[in-house]
Amino acid sequence: MTRGPCKQFDTEVALAQAMEVFRAHGYEAASLSELLKHMGIGKKSLYDTFGNKQSLFLKALEHYAHIQIRGSRDRLSAPGSPLGHLKQLLLDWQQENSQPGSCGCMFGNNIADFNTDDTAIAQVMRAYLQQMEDAFCSALTRAQAAGEVNPKADPRDLARLLLCTTQGIALLGRVMENDSTLAGTVRATLALLASG
Amino acid sequence: MTRGPCKQFDTEVALAQAMEVFRAHGYEAASLSELLKHMGIGKKSLYDTFGNKQSLFLKALEHYAHIQIRGSRDRLSAPGSPLGHLKQLLLDWQQENSQPGSCGCMFGNNIADFNTDDTAIAQVMRAYLQQMEDAFCSALTRAQAAGEVNPKADPRDLARLLLCTTQGIALLGRVMENDSTLAGTVRATLALLASG
Repeated sequence: MTRGPCKQFDTEVALAQAMEVFRAHGYEAASLSELLKHMGIGKKSLYDTFGNKQSLFLKALEHYAHIQIRGSRDRLSAPGSPLGHLKQLLLDWQQENSQPGSCGCMFGNNIADFNTDDTAIAQVMRAYLQQMEDAFCSALTRAQAAGEVNPKADPRDLARLLLCTTQGIALLGRVMENDSTLAGTVRATLALLASG
Repeated sequence: MTRGPCKQFDTEVALAQAMEVFRAHGYEAASLSELLKHMGIGKKSLYDTFGNKQSLFLKALEHYAHIQIRGSRDRLSAPGSPLGHLKQLLLDWQQENSQPGSCGCMFGNNIADFNTDDTAIAQVMRAYLQQMEDAFCSALTRAQAAGEVNPKADPRDLARLLLCTTQGIALLGRVMENDSTLAGTVRATLALLASG
């Protein structure tokens, strides 16, 4: 019995590279040649391992969602102050998106970029946004229970506001020359959450 | 003395059409053939009247900015309750961006789409965003003077939050199937502005 040839590349590393290309350029604009160049693999390896461009994109999106959503959920549900964790998450998001050359959020860029007729991608995107909203909502509910957020506020609506605001932060970070807009946005958000 | 041939098209109408193409597809992805088709003119007329693709884009962006920013400024500074005007503006923005097939904000889509190395476009985009932030800030300052918004809140930071949030609303409106996320975001924003 003969064994097939070993894969000459690390699929996780290749996927992470594909994710960066799709994040910066969007699904439509990311060219196959650029994907192959950054992934460091040949066309046959790409198709054998990841399928076509759409399935590579969906795997790259899943990789990004895993990092962003699961990472955020873990941080928000750690022991300690729920509002404190939320504050730190927002401050880190602002910092990350204030870096020169910041390329924004893979979800947001692709929502602005992709062909909205592609229902498979739109559906996956909505599911990820919902998970992020849920993570914010759980944290806000815990923060209310801990007396850190106004008990009269609706945690679901506040979570939706955080979802829209964090998307706006990532988007505007792509074009702003300094961090005043993003830092001011986070200061105002934190002040409003803690007030009342 | 002979007169040159009359222009066979209305430049305002053609520009408004170009604006819709750039708004939906972004600067990079908008093809010349699609622009010409929607503008209803030939290549020579486009170049003679609007210059190259970049200058057409900048004129279309100016047209959009005029509608959005000047329109918002006029509404926000009308006689009556400044907070009331702000509420209505946010509710209308949410409604507009909750429509099926909503294509988002021309600023936001192009920030996500365009090549950020194009400093001319980035500079113009920043100037427009600043004008929108200023319009929000003036309205919030008037709302504070009228006792409608917490006097301790920083109107500049609140204006930055509104800028990011409205961009997030326009972006997510492109992908959401119903208006719950956008409506919740506006409800939470209005509740927070009126509280304290």
